[in-house]
Amino acid sequence: MSDHLSKQFDLELEHIRTRLLQMGGLVENQVQAAIDAFSSGNLEAMQQVIDRDCEVDANEVGIDEDCTLLIARRQPTARDLRLVMAVSRIVTDLERVGDKAAKIANMSRKLHQGGNQRIPRLSDIRHCGRLATDMLQSALDSLARMDVAAARQVIGADKAIDAAFNAILRQLITYMMEDPRTISEALDIIWIAKAIERVGDHAANIAENVIYIVSGVDVRHSGAARKVASE
Amino acid sequence: MSDHLSKQFDLELEHIRTRLLQMGGLVENQVQAAIDAFSSGNLEAMQQVIDRDCEVDANEVGIDEDCTLLIARRQPTARDLRLVMAVSRIVTDLERVGDKAAKIANMSRKLHQGGNQRIPRLSDIRHCGRLATDMLQSALDSLARMDVAAARQVIGADKAIDAAFNAILRQLITYMMEDPRTISEALDIIWIAKAIERVGDHAANIAENVIYIVSGVDVRHSGAARKVASE
Repeated sequence: MSDHLSKQFDLELEHIRTRLLQMGGLVENQVQAAIDAFSSGNLEAMQQVIDRDCEVDANEVGIDEDCTLLIARRQPTARDLRLVMAVSRIVTDLERVGDKAAKIANMSRKLHQGGNQRIPRLSDIRHCGRLATDMLQSALDSLARMDVAAARQVIGADKAIDAAFNAILRQLITYMMEDPRTISEALDIIWIAKAIERVGDHAANIAENVIYIVSGVDVRHSGAARKVASE
Repeated sequence: MSDHLSKQFDLELEHIRTRLLQMGGLVENQVQAAIDAFSSGNLEAMQQVIDRDCEVDANEVGIDEDCTLLIARRQPTARDLRLVMAVSRIVTDLERVGDKAAKIANMSRKLHQGGNQRIPRLSDIRHCGRLATDMLQSALDSLARMDVAAARQVIGADKAIDAAFNAILRQLITYMMEDPRTISEALDIIWIAKAIERVGDHAANIAENVIYIVSGVDVRHSGAARKVASE
């Protein structure tokens, strides 16, 4: 690539990178706001999260378009191409995280409007939510700094969220067993907990893509990756 | 592109297309086998689905690599590039469908090994499963034939699965209310139903990508899906 072209490429890539990190920030806020609204019962805040989901969606479509245009115009190879392909995958994960935030807000609204609050708004949900938002933030930090060590830590943190989710599940089953009138409410809370747990999965996916960008090694399902590598 | 290069490109693209459709067939079988095993209680069949999930994962990594290599070597533009980018997204959806099949098999095993079968293995689950596998098959057919009209139908079919899922949920809540000893079992069945419902979502995503490849219009999250449908 000539210096001029390479500079153009860097500029466009930097533009995509900025948009991606902005989208990450937006999605992070959405998850945090949704969990806060669940805890506080603030109906207006729930609605706001639901309304802003279309912003997240627009970001996905826009950044994906930028990636395709960049590839068509600049024809990157090697690490540059890996970066653009990984960005396209990360964008999908961020959009799904946005969906989870909207789901949490939606379910919180349903719970709130249902009126009966037989189950206290478990502090365990807030704990699990904090684990998930921390994990998402760390994944986005590792992306901003292209930090493989930090990305590996994110992947390792997923187990703690799974454990927190299972604890919530056990607690809710106890409520349901003791008072069957709580069943419907408990199920709604289970969907909220599940959505939070999925945020952790997507954060881990983002971290896997950071490792792929930097090292060129696809660490998704690494057992399988090793199997294919030896074929 | 010279004729020679263009022919090389076509050959490599055809190779990716074949691999993608093979992966689609594998994933379709996995979902069907998982739902059959849930109904029959065949423990061996459940284990087989779980074991074969790494094949699905290996396919994802392999096809993604093929896509990146193809872009780097052949530098496609316009519709060809759209196709490769969409394939990369479809592969992710297929891998997630594979995860759902493994999840259904895993939960079925847990249910089976738990021993108590207070809740009959609902025929509604089989119905919902059939809707989902039909939808997945239609999505893959629309991909094989690049058939936009068929892809639109797939997107429209998602509502029926959501309705079937909600019917299952209501039925299970009734069981739980009537006999709290069924709660834990009912929850496991809920996770199975949820996994089936998600298969429908992924089939719709695949169909959206077919429309994107053929028409160049990104119909994710949009009235655009309907707009294109009415054109």
